[in-house]
Amino acid sequence: RSGEMAKSTQLADNEVFRAYATYAAIVLLKMMLMSLITAYYRMTRKVGIWEYSCSEDAEKIMRLEVVYSTECNTVKNFSSFSRGHLNDLENIVPFVGIGLLYALSGPELSTALLHFRIFTGARILHTFAYLIPLPQPGRGLSWAVGYAVTLSMAYKVLKTVLLL
Amino acid sequence: RSGEMAKSTQLADNEVFRAYATYAAIVLLKMMLMSLITAYYRMTRKVGIWEYSCSEDAEKIMRLEVVYSTECNTVKNFSSFSRGHLNDLENIVPFVGIGLLYALSGPELSTALLHFRIFTGARILHTFAYLIPLPQPGRGLSWAVGYAVTLSMAYKVLKTVLLL
Amino acid sequence: RSGEMAKSTQLADNEVFRAYATYAAIVLLKMMLMSLITAYYRMTRKVGIWEYSCSEDAEKIMRLEVVYSTECNTVKNFSSFSRGHLNDLENIVPFVGIGLLYALSGPELSTALLHFRIFTGARILHTFAYLIPLPQPGRGLSWAVGYAVTLSMAYKVLKTVLLL
Repeated sequence: RSGEMAKSTQLADNEVFRAYATYAAIVLLKMMLMSLITAYYRMTRKVGIWEYSCSEDAEKIMRLEVVYSTECNTVKNFSSFSRGHLNDLENIVPFVGIGLLYALSGPELSTALLHFRIFTGARILHTFAYLIPLPQPGRGLSWAVGYAVTLSMAYKVLKTVLLL
Repeated sequence: RSGEMAKSTQLADNEVFRAYATYAAIVLLKMMLMSLITAYYRMTRKVGIWEYSCSEDAEKIMRLEVVYSTECNTVKNFSSFSRGHLNDLENIVPFVGIGLLYALSGPELSTALLHFRIFTGARILHTFAYLIPLPQPGRGLSWAVGYAVTLSMAYKVLKTVLLL
Repeated sequence: RSGEMAKSTQLADNEVFRAYATYAAIVLLKMMLMSLITAYYRMTRKVGIWEYSCSEDAEKIMRLEVVYSTECNTVKNFSSFSRGHLNDLENIVPFVGIGLLYALSGPELSTALLHFRIFTGARILHTFAYLIPLPQPGRGLSWAVGYAVTLSMAYKVLKTVLLL
């Protein structure tokens, strides 16, 4: 247990790592919240054929949504939510992975906080842009900002640790 | 190489981290197994149009499955497997990320083991609920249990390290 | 700040971790590049109905692509790109997670480099196999090689740290 204590003390002392842990937890929680929102919309708006048993209802819904789609709103909602969720996965996975390596590469605390705060802000904005939904280029811009922050962290990581 | 040894020794001493590593490896392996199962079903049940070249076969399958869908079972199987896999990604990514931060935040070994064991059990149950498939609320319940465990770990992380 | 310095020095000394950080950053960047490529194809080839507002255009595209699909190429492109991206997520997430645990389990540097290099090479090949696209079994083989490398690392992790 001495090893465990040493480890936790060491990390409690490391402010950059604490900042990373805080923001990584926040964006992962935001991604998890997206699951709940998607599930809520699936239930209340009756979108998503996959939750239904193989009955006539299911086929009717399937035809309405996937094939004829006279109610375009429904299709739009369904796809925007599932894509918003996938977009979270695509962007938050690199942030969590590269961010960890970045936090361990010894950056300045202020620089690290700047990266983490901008990324987290951009992703929260991106989520709102999906849910409301905001018109382009709001969504595209918030995506690009998060993307650029991750690239900047990756550059610092590779500059510091490169060993091919 | 002295740094490497120090590192590995330190981690070998840290029982909470060892527990995390064990369960993280298990759930990631489970997720990888899902790839194999999905691939197996795609091949044996001829679901998933994307594997076919752009021939008449592909179009026939596409029509059968996506448009007319007289064989509801096939559609159900196809969608349930791909969604099961995506559900794994959605839930195992936050567990692996938040779980690492949790393991490094110095929890009691018994508490940590409880979290890891319940999450891993819930996800394995969830996979069976998809594959068999079990009726609701089995799937929903196993999903909710894993979700709650991850939330509990995130709460501990944020309480310990919070630095905004 | 002494804790932070100690941490970063320690990691700079740990060559296995540096190798892990390098290759993890590379595959995560590759996955991010896939986002850009997918977005580029969506814009230039007019695939992906979800980007359009709910107009007649959207419905026409939807019918063309999802329902009638007389232009099989379009469907093929759309689906292959989104699936290529999802395949990245499915495979790179386990690599980043298990690879971190592996790097911390104290492997030989040469063995670790071998694992990281083969995985990264296989995933880059896999991406080209999707984009060009190369015929099977090129894609399947590159997937299987990356899969086997991750399994091998998971075996080493579980052998070293197992604590159930």
